[in-house]
Amino acid sequence: MSSSRNFSRRQFLTTAAGSTAASVLARPAIASASANLFGATRSFDLGISGDLLPWRDQGVINTSRSPYAKLHGVPVHAVTIEEGFWYKRRKTNVEKSIPTMREELESHGRMNNFRRLVGKSSAPQIGPYFSDSDIYKWIDAVGWALQSGDRPELHRITDSMIHDVVAIQEPGGYLNTYYQGDRASLRMSQHDQEVGHEMYCLGHMIQGAIAYYRATGDTTLLDAGMKMVDGFVIPNYGPGPNQKPIISGHPEIEMALIELYRTTGKKQYVDLAGHILHGDDRWKIDPHRIVYMFCGVPFTTRTKLEGHAVRAMYACCGATDYYLETGDPAYWKTLNTLWEDLTRRQMYVTGGVGARAQWEAFGDPYELPNAQAYGESCAAIGNLMWNWRMLAASGEAKFADVVERALYNGINSGMSLDGTTYCYRNPLAFDPSSGDKIRNPWYDVTCCPPNIERTFSSLPGLFYSTSKDGLYVHLYDNSLLDWHLEDGTPIKVQQRTNYPWEGEVRMTVTPANAREFTLYVRIPWWAEAASVAVNGKAQSGARAGEYLAMRRNWKPGDVVSLNFPMTTEVLAANPRVAENRGRVAVRRGPIIYCMEQIDQPNGVSLADVSLALDSKSGGEFQSEYKPDLLDGIVVLHHRGGVLETSSATEALYGPVSLATPKTRQENTTFIPYYVWANRQSCAMEVWVPYMRT
Amino acid sequence: MSSSRNFSRRQFLTTAAGSTAASVLARPAIASASANLFGATRSFDLGISGDLLPWRDQGVINTSRSPYAKLHGVPVHAVTIEEGFWYKRRKTNVEKSIPTMREELESHGRMNNFRRLVGKSSAPQIGPYFSDSDIYKWIDAVGWALQSGDRPELHRITDSMIHDVVAIQEPGGYLNTYYQGDRASLRMSQHDQEVGHEMYCLGHMIQGAIAYYRATGDTTLLDAGMKMVDGFVIPNYGPGPNQKPIISGHPEIEMALIELYRTTGKKQYVDLAGHILHGDDRWKIDPHRIVYMFCGVPFTTRTKLEGHAVRAMYACCGATDYYLETGDPAYWKTLNTLWEDLTRRQMYVTGGVGARAQWEAFGDPYELPNAQAYGESCAAIGNLMWNWRMLAASGEAKFADVVERALYNGINSGMSLDGTTYCYRNPLAFDPSSGDKIRNPWYDVTCCPPNIERTFSSLPGLFYSTSKDGLYVHLYDNSLLDWHLEDGTPIKVQQRTNYPWEGEVRMTVTPANAREFTLYVRIPWWAEAASVAVNGKAQSGARAGEYLAMRRNWKPGDVVSLNFPMTTEVLAANPRVAENRGRVAVRRGPIIYCMEQIDQPNGVSLADVSLALDSKSGGEFQSEYKPDLLDGIVVLHHRGGVLETSSATEALYGPVSLATPKTRQENTTFIPYYVWANRQSCAMEVWVPYMRT
Repeated sequence: MSSSRNFSRRQFLTTAAGSTAASVLARPAIASASANLFGATRSFDLGISGDLLPWRDQGVINTSRSPYAKLHGVPVHAVTIEEGFWYKRRKTNVEKSIPTMREELESHGRMNNFRRLVGKSSAPQIGPYFSDSDIYKWIDAVGWALQSGDRPELHRITDSMIHDVVAIQEPGGYLNTYYQGDRASLRMSQHDQEVGHEMYCLGHMIQGAIAYYRATGDTTLLDAGMKMVDGFVIPNYGPGPNQKPIISGHPEIEMALIELYRTTGKKQYVDLAGHILHGDDRWKIDPHRIVYMFCGVPFTTRTKLEGHAVRAMYACCGATDYYLETGDPAYWKTLNTLWEDLTRRQMYVTGGVGARAQWEAFGDPYELPNAQAYGESCAAIGNLMWNWRMLAASGEAKFADVVERALYNGINSGMSLDGTTYCYRNPLAFDPSSGDKIRNPWYDVTCCPPNIERTFSSLPGLFYSTSKDGLYVHLYDNSLLDWHLEDGTPIKVQQRTNYPWEGEVRMTVTPANAREFTLYVRIPWWAEAASVAVNGKAQSGARAGEYLAMRRNWKPGDVVSLNFPMTTEVLAANPRVAENRGRVAVRRGPIIYCMEQIDQPNGVSLADVSLALDSKSGGEFQSEYKPDLLDGIVVLHHRGGVLETSSATEALYGPVSLATPKTRQENTTFIPYYVWANRQSCAMEVWVPYMRT
Repeated sequence: MSSSRNFSRRQFLTTAAGSTAASVLARPAIASASANLFGATRSFDLGISGDLLPWRDQGVINTSRSPYAKLHGVPVHAVTIEEGFWYKRRKTNVEKSIPTMREELESHGRMNNFRRLVGKSSAPQIGPYFSDSDIYKWIDAVGWALQSGDRPELHRITDSMIHDVVAIQEPGGYLNTYYQGDRASLRMSQHDQEVGHEMYCLGHMIQGAIAYYRATGDTTLLDAGMKMVDGFVIPNYGPGPNQKPIISGHPEIEMALIELYRTTGKKQYVDLAGHILHGDDRWKIDPHRIVYMFCGVPFTTRTKLEGHAVRAMYACCGATDYYLETGDPAYWKTLNTLWEDLTRRQMYVTGGVGARAQWEAFGDPYELPNAQAYGESCAAIGNLMWNWRMLAASGEAKFADVVERALYNGINSGMSLDGTTYCYRNPLAFDPSSGDKIRNPWYDVTCCPPNIERTFSSLPGLFYSTSKDGLYVHLYDNSLLDWHLEDGTPIKVQQRTNYPWEGEVRMTVTPANAREFTLYVRIPWWAEAASVAVNGKAQSGARAGEYLAMRRNWKPGDVVSLNFPMTTEVLAANPRVAENRGRVAVRRGPIIYCMEQIDQPNGVSLADVSLALDSKSGGEFQSEYKPDLLDGIVVLHHRGGVLETSSATEALYGPVSLATPKTRQENTTFIPYYVWANRQSCAMEVWVPYMRT
């Protein structure tokens, strides 16, 4: 599986240096693997050490040469996800979601915006000014998907779309359907940099292009992205005396530029990203917009998460990428300060972020409403992307824990089980009387659907990393890794498990030959009594929220048995979270649960249901795997109480006895949060009232 | 005190009919009283029975001839508020707030917007498109204030401002600084009717004009308002085939038109208000805007409060006014449905309304967050105004209870004790780390400050009403009523009380001569064990939340003794209010209390404080009147608990034990909500966590 084209970095750079307009990356055929890629490190003229990894070997982010990366991702194609939790979800993604989303994008004119500019369509410009990015994010999703196996029809259609995209590129490199034609004079004005998303769209073009390049070696879109950066952006914008100011109205370009550097080796992209992250002080920016955009002042002066949640998460991604390349300690300090703010005051239990609908923003500390939660799918994805980068920088399991939390819950909720409708908001409670429709096939601001699709497509790339001394295992599901250690030793790892429904994972580790290295297995934060054995022999030192490092001479066929006891836990929130007082959430393994009206006793309003916890235990749940329910889930049952008189008939305010109404005993049922709203529109809540019995 | 000019309605109407452009209302000098105003009723050509009440005898709303009004307000000048709770507040209002707000309006160019148009200023148009309304609301405040005693300087300045306002009126009647000059072509387009506030500004012009007219008899501004309605609006807009559609982008014009009718007797104003309330179906309006504007579909099809809270409240005011004149039962039904929604699902315990900052809107049912509460001062005022009209229509105490609740709490909080800063938002919890500044001297959208000022100015007019059979007492404070019953009998009522700090009210009732009539005294909703005596003799039938009707032959000097026990009550909220679970609010009399950080034990964070309630009682508070604290308040003390380990150091999520942390006992202190944030910016909360001990 781990094939790659072994072409000369020097050759490549020479070509690249000589041309910004023409194709700088040869379009290679899929070639055989180069097993030893990490061994040779040497410095070269751009100050980067190490080889430029062949396109096919590059991970979701390619930190193979990042000096401050402890971990290096494996390419998506190196991991085959087999029948199990993610298999069906990803199959639906590529067979249903990606194709139907293309139809939605077409029928809503997003491709005609390109065709119009070269006379291939007479339709008017349509959609918001950032609509191009939806096409790029979709191409991004296709790129990662094709790395799990070619799909000729999807491949052909995407080639054709890319053809239509690059056809509008101006000779100087500019490419943006909204600012070509009538609005050309507005390009990159301060106002348009603040709100117009030109650099955001370019960032997504680059990201989509890189994903597609890493899948196919095709550089058509990548050439266009580079041509815009090299021909339009860098000559005109930046810190130089002959350059104009540049800011990130919606951060995204920063991480894209650094990934472009990781793909091409051109260090000026890192410098430009750094300049943008620093904020261009030649412009006076409204303080409110500095908060909202999460840009405009040096990133390293930030002390808390605030403003538009997706902007903040993407800025943090870019800043972490910048740290991975530069090692600037001020960045690392700020990133950790912001991460503490995230996990101590700003993150939903589902890994969602961004409490407020107004401005799609972070709220005040501990402002985490449930029904009113915004929790945009894109923000949860941004959270995952950021934590993936923090993990690469540190090798610390706490970052992987957030990746897992967001992935299984706040992101996973964002796509319906049939793969055709998407959440923009991911509230943690829902009352259908609000009239909100949470799952929809299309949004005029359709950022979330293709973002979820690219996340699911790229998921195999998040299962493992390599490090100088071994292999890290981050995620668990039936799967086969076929890759190599950084010393070049080919290795396969087979996982067999019913994770996340059951906690046993059997991993067969097969290096091509016996080899001493360290296998780091992640013990999830919730797995308090985890145990690990190698070839049946118990290993000591497994601690929840850490990697268990097992250095030994691994032999082909060694079996690692992991056991993460799947107890159901009742969680409380910090008392400062206003809405969660008197409420608890239910977690089993990495899965956060919820109650839906439809599963509760007949005629009972969900608002009148509470969980009955005895004064000692944290709850005694019965779990039951239901293969035919919601594509197969473990449901939980627990003793509960139902109000004798529905609160709907009670006064809004009354004596304190109103707070302790009479209840009768009933059984309550919980389902995983991510499957909510897949049957009918009904009330739902993650944080459930409880009473002591 | 009850002087008025007795001029002929017929004369007035004849004049009015012949002229829309010139002054139709003579400018009378303040003249002597006409004691018997309600006796003579006769029908006339506009289908209205009864005399047009002289300007000086008209109440805050003049329902003297409204066929469906059970109660008729007394003019503001009929009630003198004497040293006590409201005296200082109203003195500050007229001596400090109104003058400094005029300076703010001037320094922010709101008057120059007028002067610019006649060449008296070279300043540019400034402020939002509804800025004219701020001037009118300020004139409104002055009008009611002058009814409590002339203030020559204020009178002179206001005359001069009115002079500057009317100077810009076009010959056809149009008057709006934003739409005169460059933007004249945009007037009353559908878009501008939806968002431009032209009719809203006109409504405030009319209201301000009427208040000033009722104080001074001066018709200068009233003439201008009528001229715009008669010359510009009615000829061009309305249901007729030659009229264009008219809608209320921000309801306000409806109640103003009906008050204009009540002031002039011209029934076409009621018809136009009815047309607007019905919604003009010749325009297609975006469904979201129909919700937001609370206009665009027949008012009688509304089933819940939604959209922009001030818009909804003002629409309800206009609809109630329309009912008072027409008796349309569909309106009464809808109004009561909406009122049930208000009081059962949408109203803060302070009488504030409008939960969401986004769109300044009502939330979903029971969506009543505390720190994030919007509770715009204008919305609480709209709530009071609406309930005052519902009270006039019904004579039911439940509406007066809402008037009192909003007045003492959600409105009263909106102005600082020194009268120079104002709340736009009135949150029920506050954390200074949010960075919000709640009290400010000026807002670019400065609707709230003059709205609070006009409410305090007009307050005497809310103390009493007359009915066919007697006199209603709604509010309690040291005061003297000098008015007459509807049969013409002069009557004085003296109130002596320390309300709301103490619950005893001694009322001396002095009709000019002994007379049989019914005295209705309001027993507040919270006064469960109220007692009433007349000349020392206990009266039966006092029930909280009702008027006690005492029909007897009242003789000069009869003494009514009311006793409303001022116990402190702990209130719970309906369990559906998400943030109030596990929390209680504290009320004493009509006053809702809060905790401020500054009053709690040193070094303790308010977020870590809870109230300790024993399992039986609703709380045992010590009350203490502190004359020197915050202009004199009763503070409350109660046993409380403080977390041993501050929640700031705890995890965001953890085991269920996180919900029941260890506490140590401390004393807690409560102050009235309305005085919060008058010392320093510090944490505050109305809904306080409690624990059972």
